[in-house]
Amino acid sequence: MQGVMLTRLPRCLARHSRRFATAPALKDDRPRTIFSGIQPTGILHLGNYLGALSNWVKLQNEARPSDDIIFSIVGWHAITLPQDPKQLSAARKDMLATLLAFGIDPKKAVVFFQEDNQCHTELSWILSCITPVQRLRRMTTWKSKIVDKRNANDESEIDESMLHAGLLTYPILQAADILAYKATHVPVGEDQTQHLELTRELADSFNRKFSPKRRCFPIPTQLTTPCRRVLSLKDPSSKMSKSSPLVSSRILLTDTTSDILSKFKGAVTDSVQGISYDPANRPGASNLLSIYAACTGEEAETVAARYANKGHAELKVDVADVVENMLKGPRAEFERLRNDHGYLAEVAKEGAEKAQERSRKTLQEVRTLVGFC
Amino acid sequence: MQGVMLTRLPRCLARHSRRFATAPALKDDRPRTIFSGIQPTGILHLGNYLGALSNWVKLQNEARPSDDIIFSIVGWHAITLPQDPKQLSAARKDMLATLLAFGIDPKKAVVFFQEDNQCHTELSWILSCITPVQRLRRMTTWKSKIVDKRNANDESEIDESMLHAGLLTYPILQAADILAYKATHVPVGEDQTQHLELTRELADSFNRKFSPKRRCFPIPTQLTTPCRRVLSLKDPSSKMSKSSPLVSSRILLTDTTSDILSKFKGAVTDSVQGISYDPANRPGASNLLSIYAACTGEEAETVAARYANKGHAELKVDVADVVENMLKGPRAEFERLRNDHGYLAEVAKEGAEKAQERSRKTLQEVRTLVGFC
Repeated sequence: MQGVMLTRLPRCLARHSRRFATAPALKDDRPRTIFSGIQPTGILHLGNYLGALSNWVKLQNEARPSDDIIFSIVGWHAITLPQDPKQLSAARKDMLATLLAFGIDPKKAVVFFQEDNQCHTELSWILSCITPVQRLRRMTTWKSKIVDKRNANDESEIDESMLHAGLLTYPILQAADILAYKATHVPVGEDQTQHLELTRELADSFNRKFSPKRRCFPIPTQLTTPCRRVLSLKDPSSKMSKSSPLVSSRILLTDTTSDILSKFKGAVTDSVQGISYDPANRPGASNLLSIYAACTGEEAETVAARYANKGHAELKVDVADVVENMLKGPRAEFERLRNDHGYLAEVAKEGAEKAQERSRKTLQEVRTLVGFC
Repeated sequence: MQGVMLTRLPRCLARHSRRFATAPALKDDRPRTIFSGIQPTGILHLGNYLGALSNWVKLQNEARPSDDIIFSIVGWHAITLPQDPKQLSAARKDMLATLLAFGIDPKKAVVFFQEDNQCHTELSWILSCITPVQRLRRMTTWKSKIVDKRNANDESEIDESMLHAGLLTYPILQAADILAYKATHVPVGEDQTQHLELTRELADSFNRKFSPKRRCFPIPTQLTTPCRRVLSLKDPSSKMSKSSPLVSSRILLTDTTSDILSKFKGAVTDSVQGISYDPANRPGASNLLSIYAACTGEEAETVAARYANKGHAELKVDVADVVENMLKGPRAEFERLRNDHGYLAEVAKEGAEKAQERSRKTLQEVRTLVGFC
């Protein structure tokens, strides 16, 4: 029950979470349809993996046989901000290779590119006709995407005239992503609650208007996921990000063993003697402990206790080691897969067919209810 | 080169036009792709036919063999305002039967339901990511639809919070309707110029961003069509409308011969002796003359000259007669067709296939340019 919903991977705004290795208890045995989406963001970094993708892998591996698990690489959301077409084309294939490299299994989950299934935009249009504009304007992410993109300080610096309609209406497309599959459960990071809330409202609104007796859409339930906020190795006041100009601030899936060691050795910590887990006062060291703990499945405090009387240098070498151990398999697999264009295309095609098959049933029902029959 | 673009038929706001029987000269011999859309509005009235549909028929019949003519019944636009699903379902079939009854020929033109071709919503989403929200808010129709619907006096009475996103963004869907077929020519009533202008801007904007060397979209040219404003028979200060509570204010395609005579006999005119064509001072009589002239292909002044020394009663009987002559064939054909569900379904299916085939080529190109490949 972990994952991330329809967000750029680095968008993980919640505070440090210590629920790394826990999963919410299953409340009942009814079959679940679980949907989650991820944007094609280029080469994955450690923050992406620990913050989001690791949740997907866990979710898939712990699923019940009756669960229907659907993971989408959501290119239509990516273009709400300007993208270079060549980079986007490469990034979406790399994201598929990344998912597979980390263990997402097309036999266990439906994995597909959103833009291969037009049912999403069809349902999005229909839902846009029952979504008040004012409701969209209240979404806090509406301007914050632009704030991020332009390195503005806050939303007051943003001229609304620069904003495109897609940036205003993408929460409707998110709702369509989920409802097209009649998803019952959506793994959502703590920062994404408002998006699922809109989806729930639209599902309910559609049901009331068009199918009051036998509701068309289940109201999807939130599966709150641990939101691991991995910080920049160079500036532990901000999160690890692909857009930082400092390459050494992030660990990439494509980094070599020596890259990893060198980046961790250069990580900013503090001059306090000994090691302790104190995110507020010692963010650099705490970040290393969090990363270490996430890789080994421990609690950060447990790791901290072992290193209490050791130095930062030793911790840095050791965290580089556990990260290398975690990444080396997926890295090799990623490098192999990203060049196997035929296999990636085949996975994408099969995924698209499965996604289309599921969503067409929903859309046929929706069309009939709306009067398009 | 006549028709109406993507509007409810009665939305014909221009002044009386005397260009009833004229068509713009063809400027060159290049093959044209002509697109136009019409909303499913229920049983057609005389204002719909003379204001819009007659233009389509003329356009189709005067087209060159190299022209590709595409007519769409645009249900996705209809749902930007609340619709009763059962009525909408009936209205869309009735609109198809109406088009066919008046002579739209599926062998000469592609006739299809918009909602049978998901390429429209896909392209609409992509275009929404390059459309500034402020640009949409400047469209004057954005609130006027609600003004009409709620019988408000003007836009200041409308609370924006009641407005749904589809009502804000439908001009983008209109642009997608047109651009999905790379239409070169769009028949547009004088009141619809701003919609085509947005389409032209989006085509140009997409070309500049994504295909600067070999432009993806032609910039569609406006085919200005005569916008015949047929007025209410009971209140010649307003247009003939399906929403007026006075059934006698409008002539319906389903009216019998005696209905038509009775409605024209009850038409509001004036107490001036004799007949003259003077829309500003004698709107009632002038409306009858306009209708008469449109049915016979004459100029209103020519008809007026013949009736100069006659009374209103004689004009009313005669206009009822020419209207009956014009409508009786289509009326019988409509009644026959609307019950031939199998044939309508077949026409819709074939039309959808042709529309899909054309637009899929465009979308494949668009996807590649954007980076979805």
